[in-house]
Amino acid sequence: MAGNSFGKLFRFTSWGESHGPAIGCVVDGVPPGIELAEPDIQHWLDRRRPGQSKFTSQRREADAVRILSGVFEGRTTGAPVSLMIENLDQRPKDYSEIKDLFRPGHADYTYFKKYGVRDYRGGGRASARETAVRVAAGAIARKLLEKEVSAEVAVRGAMVQMGPHEIDRERWDWAEVEANPFWCPDAETAAAWADELEAVRKAGSSVGAIVEITASGLPAGLGEPVYDKLDADIAKAMMSINAVKGVEIGSGFAGVLERGEEAHDEMRMEKGRVRFLGNKAGGTLGGISTGQDITARFVVKPTSSILIPRRGVTVGGKNAEVVTKGRHDPCVGIRAVPVGEAMMACVLADHLMRHRAQCGGPQSSS
Amino acid sequence: MAGNSFGKLFRFTSWGESHGPAIGCVVDGVPPGIELAEPDIQHWLDRRRPGQSKFTSQRREADAVRILSGVFEGRTTGAPVSLMIENLDQRPKDYSEIKDLFRPGHADYTYFKKYGVRDYRGGGRASARETAVRVAAGAIARKLLEKEVSAEVAVRGAMVQMGPHEIDRERWDWAEVEANPFWCPDAETAAAWADELEAVRKAGSSVGAIVEITASGLPAGLGEPVYDKLDADIAKAMMSINAVKGVEIGSGFAGVLERGEEAHDEMRMEKGRVRFLGNKAGGTLGGISTGQDITARFVVKPTSSILIPRRGVTVGGKNAEVVTKGRHDPCVGIRAVPVGEAMMACVLADHLMRHRAQCGGPQSSS
Amino acid sequence: MAGNSFGKLFRFTSWGESHGPAIGCVVDGVPPGIELAEPDIQHWLDRRRPGQSKFTSQRREADAVRILSGVFEGRTTGAPVSLMIENLDQRPKDYSEIKDLFRPGHADYTYFKKYGVRDYRGGGRASARETAVRVAAGAIARKLLEKEVSAEVAVRGAMVQMGPHEIDRERWDWAEVEANPFWCPDAETAAAWADELEAVRKAGSSVGAIVEITASGLPAGLGEPVYDKLDADIAKAMMSINAVKGVEIGSGFAGVLERGEEAHDEMRMEKGRVRFLGNKAGGTLGGISTGQDITARFVVKPTSSILIPRRGVTVGGKNAEVVTKGRHDPCVGIRAVPVGEAMMACVLADHLMRHRAQCGGPQSSS
Amino acid sequence: MAGNSFGKLFRFTSWGESHGPAIGCVVDGVPPGIELAEPDIQHWLDRRRPGQSKFTSQRREADAVRILSGVFEGRTTGAPVSLMIENLDQRPKDYSEIKDLFRPGHADYTYFKKYGVRDYRGGGRASARETAVRVAAGAIARKLLEKEVSAEVAVRGAMVQMGPHEIDRERWDWAEVEANPFWCPDAETAAAWADELEAVRKAGSSVGAIVEITASGLPAGLGEPVYDKLDADIAKAMMSINAVKGVEIGSGFAGVLERGEEAHDEMRMEKGRVRFLGNKAGGTLGGISTGQDITARFVVKPTSSILIPRRGVTVGGKNAEVVTKGRHDPCVGIRAVPVGEAMMACVLADHLMRHRAQCGGPQSSS
Repeated sequence: MAGNSFGKLFRFTSWGESHGPAIGCVVDGVPPGIELAEPDIQHWLDRRRPGQSKFTSQRREADAVRILSGVFEGRTTGAPVSLMIENLDQRPKDYSEIKDLFRPGHADYTYFKKYGVRDYRGGGRASARETAVRVAAGAIARKLLEKEVSAEVAVRGAMVQMGPHEIDRERWDWAEVEANPFWCPDAETAAAWADELEAVRKAGSSVGAIVEITASGLPAGLGEPVYDKLDADIAKAMMSINAVKGVEIGSGFAGVLERGEEAHDEMRMEKGRVRFLGNKAGGTLGGISTGQDITARFVVKPTSSILIPRRGVTVGGKNAEVVTKGRHDPCVGIRAVPVGEAMMACVLADHLMRHRAQCGGPQSSS
Repeated sequence: MAGNSFGKLFRFTSWGESHGPAIGCVVDGVPPGIELAEPDIQHWLDRRRPGQSKFTSQRREADAVRILSGVFEGRTTGAPVSLMIENLDQRPKDYSEIKDLFRPGHADYTYFKKYGVRDYRGGGRASARETAVRVAAGAIARKLLEKEVSAEVAVRGAMVQMGPHEIDRERWDWAEVEANPFWCPDAETAAAWADELEAVRKAGSSVGAIVEITASGLPAGLGEPVYDKLDADIAKAMMSINAVKGVEIGSGFAGVLERGEEAHDEMRMEKGRVRFLGNKAGGTLGGISTGQDITARFVVKPTSSILIPRRGVTVGGKNAEVVTKGRHDPCVGIRAVPVGEAMMACVLADHLMRHRAQCGGPQSSS
Repeated sequence: MAGNSFGKLFRFTSWGESHGPAIGCVVDGVPPGIELAEPDIQHWLDRRRPGQSKFTSQRREADAVRILSGVFEGRTTGAPVSLMIENLDQRPKDYSEIKDLFRPGHADYTYFKKYGVRDYRGGGRASARETAVRVAAGAIARKLLEKEVSAEVAVRGAMVQMGPHEIDRERWDWAEVEANPFWCPDAETAAAWADELEAVRKAGSSVGAIVEITASGLPAGLGEPVYDKLDADIAKAMMSINAVKGVEIGSGFAGVLERGEEAHDEMRMEKGRVRFLGNKAGGTLGGISTGQDITARFVVKPTSSILIPRRGVTVGGKNAEVVTKGRHDPCVGIRAVPVGEAMMACVLADHLMRHRAQCGGPQSSS
Repeated sequence: MAGNSFGKLFRFTSWGESHGPAIGCVVDGVPPGIELAEPDIQHWLDRRRPGQSKFTSQRREADAVRILSGVFEGRTTGAPVSLMIENLDQRPKDYSEIKDLFRPGHADYTYFKKYGVRDYRGGGRASARETAVRVAAGAIARKLLEKEVSAEVAVRGAMVQMGPHEIDRERWDWAEVEANPFWCPDAETAAAWADELEAVRKAGSSVGAIVEITASGLPAGLGEPVYDKLDADIAKAMMSINAVKGVEIGSGFAGVLERGEEAHDEMRMEKGRVRFLGNKAGGTLGGISTGQDITARFVVKPTSSILIPRRGVTVGGKNAEVVTKGRHDPCVGIRAVPVGEAMMACVLADHLMRHRAQCGGPQSSS
């Protein structure tokens, strides 16, 4: 059972290599009657697209998506939605010098050990290029959530740490996120990061980051205990993104420092409804959504492709020095923000449908 | 699609509530010809069993497992293996006073919101009791790995932090792990934890923990990109354990502090084989195992059932004060160690079979 | 991916061998709030139970089912429902003489080729004993359909041919089905079958049968094109029953004799609703239910265990003569009737939930 | 869980409507190292292509397949293989007059009831056009079987009955199958069918057919009891093909006429191997392959699009007379032959991988 599908009821199956003619996915299980057109997806792809600032890869891709099926007269039909994005800027020559190299921190070694095949053209399936497809599928998940839950549903991400430099949460401003090249919710920190990252870039080095995703407007009741808990599926979704090495929900690892009387969100009745007095849980209890914001954070390791020479080996079994020239992303965490949002949206869409199958609701508000 | 099955090819489906007559699981996909008898499973259940020190719940359960199918003359037949553990110490009266309460940090609120049913007898499916079944399934996964890979495969866990107190990794000793009630690999730290936890227990409070799981002896090539990466499935497995709020692989969140030239394991040829000069990756690259040790850590929040009064609400919608008397686990992280090991073993068994299906190997060494 | 689970959203996983201590299943995905108690399941098991006339196996089993989880205060909770039936009448000695034999028409040869294991105690998983579990799961599926669709839903079966002798459809009477040992809807034919089958039994031979299952009261819209069409899943369900060698829907194979103008059900408007002028389609078009009765037929081959000597081989690779003494079912098609009903109910429950997940309805009438 | 994927380990997900820009599928789980190029697939698509004789639809499609991913330097890489076929001859005007009609025997009524959407352009997902994708996936399955089992594996189909006219099995000649427009293995019958079908076509009517698929060269041991038996999955595969109303394995429905002593294939040892003295079982016992030829037959109902007026209703709820002009296939059974072969190949490839996952073999002969 190969692993190129994500989700169970809202399920997308992706395909395509970084240096093939195109990439794409098939989204099966999309409810009928959702308004959907290419610009709805293109909007989110444009946000993710590389080459938009000097801080992300200079690969230039239009990333123009085509809907090949499943939509008729502007609405989904219930049939699978096939999406395709052509690869325009393949530039295979850039990579010819690494044809015979296994690079530290890259997946080329393990792909070769697993499949016995050496596709030396570039990252192949392991390339960040694949994440465009996630963003496209996530755009459909967003539309689904808006229709089947409420137009108030929002899935938003931000970069909250770059290297050792954290944002100041007191200054959090969602509007700021769209205003700087880091998806940073804090303008002062964004300015500092710009200087910092420029230095990293010039040094031919790279730096890690922490990304935070928040989903609001979702009902209580999503999540399928005991193995497909909502937070378990979110953890999987985030960890499946390239270069992610850790995921946490709510207070996460910091919670180890708290005592039991601090760690749990107390409850009060307010106007006939339960109100939680905090959200250390990150929006889930027992793996089921509480109706509060769902918050997840993940860490993205520093880019492995750097200009500083590192020790690697050749496919033929010789020691070698590796320097990765060509395009360079000094902080791949930046590009992970729209991807994390998309994966969160997909998990939520899937769990909404799973919940509806067994428990019959929550129903569409339309 | 309810969530009571784990794994795709090595797949177990669990059932049972904390206060029903029994709990159990069906493990489907077990290869034929594996030597298996009840003591092979009982050994691991005994390790996990609560009530073994004053630091874990005083619920007394024999946790005696029965194999009801799938084994003939001491070997698996390829048919599903059904395991059952009777619940002896159900003590429903202990819980009668919380019949109408939604307690902070507990899953009873979200289960009620999801299913519309109030099973007031106790934790039900959300109880830590369910994790006995994971340990039982994990015991079969271990046997599978030993037969189909090598007797050298080892999946081991340890508690590496309790509250703010970390172990000293210089003193790591696997033998020590079995010698103290904390699965602590460092004897000095274990002694300090004992004092600390006694104070926590007397205060009626609780404390969080960080658990580390290591799997060694596995081949390179396990993991199914791009959505069922090995680390993604490990993240899901760990996050699905009760009270876990974060998971990391290799250097995890700490990696955000490193530059690109520090963060990636360099490689050298040694006696004709690739040797990595470190294991910051935690044994996976691109979601596929490298052949090094696989290391994951997860954080367990402090027990929510404490003696210190907290604010909750009643099922009927009134504010209430909650004090959880009865059994008390001041650090549930302790009991999570064998569970984390078991989940790691299950993930690896599943991925071994998935790899074998598509790529034809690695084959049994027997 | 072993094959001991059936269904996707309403999903049961079965376990147990004919000569082990028990058989059972776990039903995951059962909606919460369904009234369910052991007698609701026992009723259907009693109908299926062997040893009720001289025409079915003399194995005597109480087939008493226990619900071990998933039900609280008489209603399902949404948690998995675990069912167990103990094997009382194992009589292993009956089978000792066939310990080393591969018998014609039996699965023991192929199980050995597949798994490399010889469980000589009896049919193991291939025994008709396994079908008790299907009937138990089917009883829950019926409850689900009654609650989530309507109390009018009925899934009923009948034997319509035994050897060369067909019923007269003009005399079809559902009440008669419960009144004879053949589930025959035609009293005259039942009487003739009794004589015929007594002769077959005395001759130590066996005879095939055709069974017909009808489901009524279901809405239009069930079925998941293009690979999980409703009729495709029904075909799989029926073909998975022991000894079944063919399945047809609606006019089935007889339809080859019709011209296009005869083969398709015409439609008229009647009181504002579409009425079909026939049901040659058997209740599905394009793999989706039309709202008419769903009808499927399947053929059950003659019992392979007969008293007439046949040529087989030994496990050790020698020619041998095989005579199966002991219990004898001259027409296993009889016992397949309740099993076919149960499988139909399970397929429909699963598709109801699948439809609800994507399309949001039809909703519960309660 | 929508139904546009087929198979579990060798799994294809299809997309596309008859009147959209293209159709295609993603095949996930393809083992690495299989030689594969577009002509390997095109060969089988060309066999299926309509418009090749006056007896099949005059829609003219080049059906030129493109491989968009998963192949590098002429071999599969283990990544998903994406296939796309553009729709050239969409001719939407042909269908404009049926825009508001629900036609007898068509799926347009049930699709509308299920999804609430009316795609009036043509058959959409229910069109026979979708089956081109099955043939393409089947071509990859064939390559897989040839590499992983043996070059001797053959999956072949033939039409064995048209309307009431059966072939003479004494004259069966596989070479003849490719020599007439009916895939008829018997030249004399083919000639008679030509006259017969010409008369049907001129009458504006249509006729049913029975197709037989045979797979040879497969090992014993394929099939996953007890619900994913090989014959159960074959039944599902065949029943999922448009217009199929019945499936049988081996002696099938005719077996009801046999006594137990006739119905089961006896065994003898021959040169140290088991030899069956017949193949009434159709190559499976207990749902597992015996190593003999696997034979399945299915019935295809007469085309529902005919020139003879039939009673239907309009989308708006009025009675109407329906005549389907435009392209006309007087016997859609003809085009089902390559589709049935392809589905058989896909089932076998999937089960080979499933068997290998659990039992470790049979292994590649290469």
